[in-house]
This record gives sequence, structure tokens and C-alpha cells, in this order.
Amino acid sequence: MSTATDSSVIIVGAGVVGLATAVELASRGHEVTVLDPAPASGATHFAGGMLAPTAEVVYQQDPLFPLMRASGEWYPELIDLVASHTEVPTGYRDEGTFVVAADRADAQHLVELADYQSLHDMEVERITVREARRAEPLLSPRLAAAVSIPGDTQVFPRQWAASLLSAAQELGVRFFRTAAQSVDAARGVVSTPAGNFHADDVVLAAGLGTRDVDWARSAGLERSPLQLRPVYGDIVRLRVPEHLQPLLNRVVRGFVEDRPIYLIPRADGTLAVGATTREDTLTTAQAGGVYALLRDAIRILPAVEECEFLEASAGARPGTPDDLPYLGRVSDRLVISTGYFRHGILLTALAARCTRELIDGSDPSIDLTACNPLRHRKEQQ
Amino acid sequence: MSTATDSSVIIVGAGVVGLATAVELASRGHEVTVLDPAPASGATHFAGGMLAPTAEVVYQQDPLFPLMRASGEWYPELIDLVASHTEVPTGYRDEGTFVVAADRADAQHLVELADYQSLHDMEVERITVREARRAEPLLSPRLAAAVSIPGDTQVFPRQWAASLLSAAQELGVRFFRTAAQSVDAARGVVSTPAGNFHADDVVLAAGLGTRDVDWARSAGLERSPLQLRPVYGDIVRLRVPEHLQPLLNRVVRGFVEDRPIYLIPRADGTLAVGATTREDTLTTAQAGGVYALLRDAIRILPAVEECEFLEASAGARPGTPDDLPYLGRVSDRLVISTGYFRHGILLTALAARCTRELIDGSDPSIDLTACNPLRHRKEQQ
Repeated sequence: MSTATDSSVIIVGAGVVGLATAVELASRGHEVTVLDPAPASGATHFAGGMLAPTAEVVYQQDPLFPLMRASGEWYPELIDLVASHTEVPTGYRDEGTFVVAADRADAQHLVELADYQSLHDMEVERITVREARRAEPLLSPRLAAAVSIPGDTQVFPRQWAASLLSAAQELGVRFFRTAAQSVDAARGVVSTPAGNFHADDVVLAAGLGTRDVDWARSAGLERSPLQLRPVYGDIVRLRVPEHLQPLLNRVVRGFVEDRPIYLIPRADGTLAVGATTREDTLTTAQAGGVYALLRDAIRILPAVEECEFLEASAGARPGTPDDLPYLGRVSDRLVISTGYFRHGILLTALAARCTRELIDGSDPSIDLTACNPLRHRKEQQ
Repeated sequence: MSTATDSSVIIVGAGVVGLATAVELASRGHEVTVLDPAPASGATHFAGGMLAPTAEVVYQQDPLFPLMRASGEWYPELIDLVASHTEVPTGYRDEGTFVVAADRADAQHLVELADYQSLHDMEVERITVREARRAEPLLSPRLAAAVSIPGDTQVFPRQWAASLLSAAQELGVRFFRTAAQSVDAARGVVSTPAGNFHADDVVLAAGLGTRDVDWARSAGLERSPLQLRPVYGDIVRLRVPEHLQPLLNRVVRGFVEDRPIYLIPRADGTLAVGATTREDTLTTAQAGGVYALLRDAIRILPAVEECEFLEASAGARPGTPDDLPYLGRVSDRLVISTGYFRHGILLTALAARCTRELIDGSDPSIDLTACNPLRHRKEQQ
């Protein structure tokens, strides 16, 4: 696979985006170094892992749709690539998703959203609650409506990160457990407490940590144009008792009195219930969030009451002002890849492929104009 | 304090009952040895710690009332005794308790219970919700009724167990981290994996673990007459954010749609919310239990929503068929002291004092007929 474009690349950040980018680049013959004080942790650790370009559609975010859809289409290829380099399971599951509505207003919302999704050429099928319950018998009989989204899939983020890490190591990617302090965007030098690293290209993919890396002035900017903020979400993990296995066969999302909720069955017999969205600065799971998640989950799937309560945690996702990622080249030596917000796991396939194309100097497979990392420069506003 | 009655005593079990008994005996000159594979853990670890002879009154449990009341009256003396032998704080707080009602049916329940408590000479005062909120401003304004129970106090069980352990050590009590396998009730021999121990008297105070100790035949019984069963309770621990401190100044108990709940402020800035009562065999916190606790707590004290969720856990309390403890002498060498159920922390003062009196051969300060450890012998039924 080696080509004339082969080069050395440093990737700052070993979340799923950084790791998948490392795998993608290394598999094409690039010599890749990854810097991260704690690989495969960060937001990944708290992610739901749904690959749901359809179910995660949000009104008025049309520029996101093609990115999500493309990434969803490219995902199986990334999964195959990783699986060909490691025995660690990816946790990929393609049973599709149901979305259900708790009350009549939620049903109205669900139907309108399905129409909107169909309008945007997404595959979504209205089914009866009876049909939903035939496939998922433990769903509440008191649901108001249901749709099936056969194309939405999932990975188990903690497992997925581990398999990416393993594949990257198998492909010869070098890991250093250190944090980047600054990147010289003109010379390709990354300084860290462990010394300086040099490469032809640097990819800054450190999620919220990107804020702590000094790179802007070396790229000719007065200050960093990246506007990243933490968006917290509480997530609850439950263990499904033996006699209720499997609690669910696929991901079930829902609207309960207009609040979104998702229920994700894992291969390890646990169920993840997420996720609240909080813009406060509270870095731990909140009692109100845990309460709301359990309440809404029980409303959709009453047997949740009988599950063992394992843990409640909270993670911060890197949000941007327009909910679009920052993905693009900002200098001869520096590519920015962060700000994936709620869609970090899904957009990982897009991030990895497009970054590889940017490094290779070829045209990205998809128009990245909307993702321009410089779009929020103060001068432009 | 040494008297002619001084003897050597082995106590099996180092929960609060075993530890307090050790302190009581050692302070009177007895030579005490305590056997427990894990001192100061067990049910103690999951207890609320309310010393609430009034608030914990349950209808039809009249034989319990005098025991609870006596133990409540004797508690300050035990606290003083422990405090005189250790610097470890006991977590004793005497701000009293409020009991509140969420809806009108709960208010009716509350008023009837207060009448019942008054009838049994307990100190309980009906107050208005406005008065309750003047003392506890964060209580919901939508409560239906409130009463004040000035005499109910609390300890922080984990701290209390630590202070008891420290005081016992200070008093020369010897600890062996081993479990009793059998007790020879006639000869005062306790066999353990770590060898045999001998004493003039043995006190079996191992909570539910008492079931695993073989002692009955040596006391002339065909089988153990003790009918102990685990009664589980889920308990949630929250951290109160700085700006909401103190969330509560005293223990608040409540009835929410007939479900009892309690909210216990701790000196360490946390709030304990308990406790469900489950007779199943599930040894971990259940999602349904955690949900119900948070729901009911928020109903009474809305600011609970803003607390950090620390942990949910479950503990097993040793229940008996009639909810009365097993406390009394079953042979020349053996005293049984277990089955304290929901009142283990409160009844600790009673257990310690009466056991000491039984060992000393003096009349117990209170009639223990109802606590006879042999009352559930099959032959008697």
C-alpha cells in the first residue's frame, strides 16, 4: 500500500478519532507517532457508541447530515480494516435501531422527525407498537409510536477504542504517554514534557484537550480560532439479570415528554442508558440527571427497574458554536481534527479517512468547507 | 472499675454491636477478644445511622418500643464512654428529626402516626410546613404536613464504627481477623481457621454471619433456633455542592405516596438517601430502588437534583420473624446478640449494656423476655 506520499505523521490525542486516524495512516504506509498521556480514555470512555446518522438527526443541522451519512457508510470499511489487524473485538453491531415515543406529543414529534428524515433520503420505517414489541418484547405496551431505522449501527466505545489501539500497535504506530504543549505549525515540531517530536505532518486530535495546545501563532494567527466548550452528559450503566437476558436485541432510542433517551444493550450483559446534555461545568454525574435517565428508561422499558445499578458517570464532549467539527488543514504541517461533539464515535470514520486524504494531498472524499477550522476567527465575525 | 466479676470474653463479630459490647465490657475490666475477618464492615457500612426510637416506630411492634426508647436514652452515655477513649469522632448529632408528608394521604398517615407516638409517650410535635421550612429552607413548599421529633439523633455509621474500633483498641481489646466456625457453648471454645480460642464467656454478635457458626448442638439443641434472613436496602450517597451547603441541618424523614424515605446530612458534606426494603436475594443496588429513592428525595427536597451522584449500594440487615432481636444467654458460656434488623445502630447501646449485664450475672436493665434467642425453636411452634 506504500506510495510516494508516505510521510511521518504525529497525531496528538488518542481518543477514537486520533486512534482511527493512526490506523488509517499507518495502513497506508505512513510512519505514525501518537502522543497522549492516557490513550483510549477521555470522552470515548463515556460515549454511547451509536452509529446513527439517521436517528441522530437534529433539525436545522443540515450541514451535518452528509458528514454523518458518509461516515456511517464508511464505517464498515474502517471496522474491517481494524479487524484485519487485531483480535480485540470492535463491538460493532448492525441490528439497527428502534425509536419510540412515550406519549402522543412524543408520537407527533417522532412522526414529524421521520418525515424529515425521509425527506433527506434517510431510511426510516414507521412500525406499529405491536410490531416493535414483537421484536423487542420487553418494551412498554403503553408506548405511543415507533419507527425502525435499519441502517443505524453501534460500537461499544471502550471496546472499540481498545481494538483501535491494538490495531495501531500491530501496524507499528509508536505511542508516547505524554501531552503536547505546543505545535509549531510551520516546522512540524511538537513540544512535550518528554521532549520535542518532529514530523512531516501533525494532526491535532486531542478533543477538548486541544485547547491546551499552543499552535495558533505559529500558523500566523493572533489566537486560536477554535471555540471548543465541554458539553457534559450523564450516563448510567446497568447489569441485566440473567433471567431478563437479552433485555433488548438492538439499540432503542426514545422521546419521553420531549426528552431524548437511548438504551444500548452491550455484548457484556450490561445496558447503557444515556444521555443528558448539560452545559454546566459539573464534571460528575448529577443526581437530577441520573434520576431523569432512570425515569425515562423505565417508562420505555419497565424491566430496567430490575437491573442492577452499576455506575453513573459523566463525560465532556467537545462542542463547537455550530455543532460542526473542526476538520481541515491550517498550515503546511498542521491538520486540525476535533470538535466532534455528540457525534465523535460516528464521525470517526470520516475523520480518519479525510485526514488521511489531507495528509496525502488528495482531495477529500467529501466537501469539508463547513468544517473549516478557521471559520470562527474573531476577524471573520 | 475492675470487680470480682471480671472475666475473659470472646466476641464473635465486629459490627457496631460487637464493637460496642467490647468497649462496654473492656471498660468494666473484662479481658476481651474480638474475632472478625473484616471489622467495622458488614451491615454497618450501609446503615443510615439514625437513632430514632420515635420516628422509626412501626405499628404493631409494641414490644420493640421500650427497647428502642431505652437504647436511645442510653446512647449518650455510650457516646461519652467511646469519646473518652478515642480521638476518632463518633459523628453523633442531636439536632432532632423532622418527618414530612408529600401529599394529603401521607399527611393523614403522618398525623395518625404522631398520635400513636404521643399515645406511647413519645415526644413529637406537629409543626406547620412553614415552620419546617423556616428551619430547613430547602424543603419543598409543596409538602402536605410536618412533625418535629426533637429527641431523635444520629451517628455516622462508618465513623461510629471506626471510633468504636479505636476505643476498643485503646481499652486493650485484642482483635483477630478470623471467622468463627463453631462455638462450644458448654466449654467456651471458639474454633477458627486461625486456631481455637477459649474464654469464660462467648458473645455471638456476627449479624447474618451468625448463621455460619455452629453452636446449637453444644447448647443442647437439635438445630439453631435462630431464624435470620437478609433484608436488603438500597442507599444512595450524594455530594452536596458548595453553594447548597448545608442542604439540611437535621435528618428529614418522609412519606411519599406511602413510601418511607430518609435524608441524612453528614458532616463530610454528603447526603445519604435511604432506604428501600427488599426481601429478594439481590445483593447489589437495584435500578428501580435507586430511581425510587431519587424520585422521592427530589419530591421532598428539590435541590437533591443538583447534588453530585456518588454511589448507590445495598446492604443486608439481619431480620427475624418478629422483627425483635435475639439477645440473651443460651448456655453457661454463650450469649447471643444478633437480629437487630433495621435498628442495629439504635439498639447498639442496648445490646452493649445488656450483654455486659448478662456477662456480669446481674439483672438486665430492661426486660429481655421478648428477645429470647430460643423463642423460635421449632419444638415450640
